[in-house]
Amino acid sequence: MTDIFRRVGDKWSMLLVILLGARPHRYNDLHRAVEGISQRMLTRTLRTLETDGLVQRAVHPTVPPSVEYSLTPLGRTLLEPLSALADWAVLHEAEINEAHARHTSG
Amino acid sequence: MTDIFRRVGDKWSMLLVILLGARPHRYNDLHRAVEGISQRMLTRTLRTLETDGLVQRAVHPTVPPSVEYSLTPLGRTLLEPLSALADWAVLHEAEINEAHARHTSG
Repeated sequence: MTDIFRRVGDKWSMLLVILLGARPHRYNDLHRAVEGISQRMLTRTLRTLETDGLVQRAVHPTVPPSVEYSLTPLGRTLLEPLSALADWAVLHEAEINEAHARHTSG
Repeated sequence: MTDIFRRVGDKWSMLLVILLGARPHRYNDLHRAVEGISQRMLTRTLRTLETDGLVQRAVHPTVPPSVEYSLTPLGRTLLEPLSALADWAVLHEAEINEAHARHTSG
């Protein structure tokens, strides 16, 4: 279990799955939407998510061809626990920031 | 939100919170229990979890003194979404491994 947890429990993977949960995205949309992710990390994380069967890619015959990423049915099952974690982060953000302030001033 | 998500959405933090959710642990217990974590990473992750107010440490006056880590009340609130993510990982482990096999053989 810890093995899968290691792979899925990665902030970039989680942010990408949540984004793709809203709608399919093209590569550049994802790169713009995830603050601080390098192109190398985005490419690598998308490839891992594809290998894990959580994300799929479709090539559209535009000129130049464009690649669109979306969640697979398996990927969609991850949305529920991930959204619960995201909700937790929003709900407790103030408390965590207060703890930070106490530590840095303490 | 992504900021907190970045911090909490880290595999070492998640594994440690789940372990500490079962019972308090001493440093060496944690180091043995989390496969593959270096002492440097364990120290750094525990310090971040303390700064975030999720983990607390108690020094026991044994000889030599021993340090015990446990979850704070705020840390305990993280157990529910994390356990849901861990349950998801266990439930879908086979499907992910199959996807892997398809990719590596494909």
